[in-house]
Amino acid sequence: MVRRFSEERDWDQFHNAKDLAIGIVTEASELLETFRFKSEGEVERLLKNESSAKRVRDELADVFYFALRLAQKYEIDVSGSLEEKIRDNARKYPVEKAKGSSKKYNEL
Amino acid sequence: MVRRFSEERDWDQFHNAKDLAIGIVTEASELLETFRFKSEGEVERLLKNESSAKRVRDELADVFYFALRLAQKYEIDVSGSLEEKIRDNARKYPVEKAKGSSKKYNEL
Amino acid sequence: MVRRFSEERDWDQFHNAKDLAIGIVTEASELLETFRFKSEGEVERLLKNESSAKRVRDELADVFYFALRLAQKYEIDVSGSLEEKIRDNARKYPVEKAKGSSKKYNEL
Amino acid sequence: MVRRFSEERDWDQFHNAKDLAIGIVTEASELLETFRFKSEGEVERLLKNESSAKRVRDELADVFYFALRLAQKYEIDVSGSLEEKIRDNARKYPVEKAKGSSKKYNEL
Repeated sequence: MVRRFSEERDWDQFHNAKDLAIGIVTEASELLETFRFKSEGEVERLLKNESSAKRVRDELADVFYFALRLAQKYEIDVSGSLEEKIRDNARKYPVEKAKGSSKKYNEL
Repeated sequence: MVRRFSEERDWDQFHNAKDLAIGIVTEASELLETFRFKSEGEVERLLKNESSAKRVRDELADVFYFALRLAQKYEIDVSGSLEEKIRDNARKYPVEKAKGSSKKYNEL
Repeated sequence: MVRRFSEERDWDQFHNAKDLAIGIVTEASELLETFRFKSEGEVERLLKNESSAKRVRDELADVFYFALRLAQKYEIDVSGSLEEKIRDNARKYPVEKAKGSSKKYNEL
Repeated sequence: MVRRFSEERDWDQFHNAKDLAIGIVTEASELLETFRFKSEGEVERLLKNESSAKRVRDELADVFYFALRLAQKYEIDVSGSLEEKIRDNARKYPVEKAKGSSKKYNEL
């Protein structure tokens, strides 16, 4: 669906890796903007409100659109990369050290 | 896998919507940083080099990790949201107007 | 100093508006990453710790470097633009409505 | 002016370091969004068009607003930090090695 939508509009020419990465950042940033200056309680309320929850879903969908499009154009295996990354992180963050901690691996 | 990795480490307490959105932005930004000050040709070469391509895959996997985790924690149906968003965009960017154009819908 | 540092290295060719904007985003994002998954109390402690405070100052300096470089290359009057923007915002956020509120102007 | 604008609106309570860093990222990202999917030539034209140049100035002013506010609230000496950072970078990027190169210091 992501590919068809883009190709029907002849957007391949704009969808180079750099601009797609800009796409992910800018959409993720619009998602984050929804939570700017909000306390944790306000964010939870906002996510229970149908119209702001819809905005959050929309911004997140935009992130997925550009991330999937980047993967697709450069033939990146998303599931494989994610599995590999989680395996790497499991080594960097062993359960016994990382449990309940928000520290970075190099501070553990 | 995303859920298990996070729950085994008791990271639910940190994975609120705001910090997860920060997670997506910061990882997307590390992905983009790979392409900073690079021309289109340099970016293409970089994606053909195994070690920098691995870095791109890793950063993209981090984006997916936080995006999927956000969806999971707040019970967002990713496929459904993406389909809905693409349908909305198909209306905002009709093929006959948007074809071959990088303009925003409000400038078309 | 910003200009001299860049020109001595012959970096004018890379410092186009798009890459400089990428520079601001990626450095601002590294600044934000310092605070990821941290509570308000932890952030305050971190800012009192000399080595992490130095990191914050460094990332903020990087933001200023790219922002000033963009202004300089495109002859943008920073003080003038900031004054104009604050005047605009003073209209969008009148004291009697905006006082003590974190709402956006279109929700006030 | 930045301080007065914020304090008159009693916004000190929202202006903690984490949310101000979010402020910088999200505004920098709106600036970058202006250039998304645009070629270098299109970006140059856009900067010569009065209404889009005004948008760029506005977004850049927003970046400065949040960056200055962060510096002010946490008593960061912006000029001093910038001078220090440029001195550090002058060591990491010596003219004879970095001249005309877009490589990171660890690749030089």
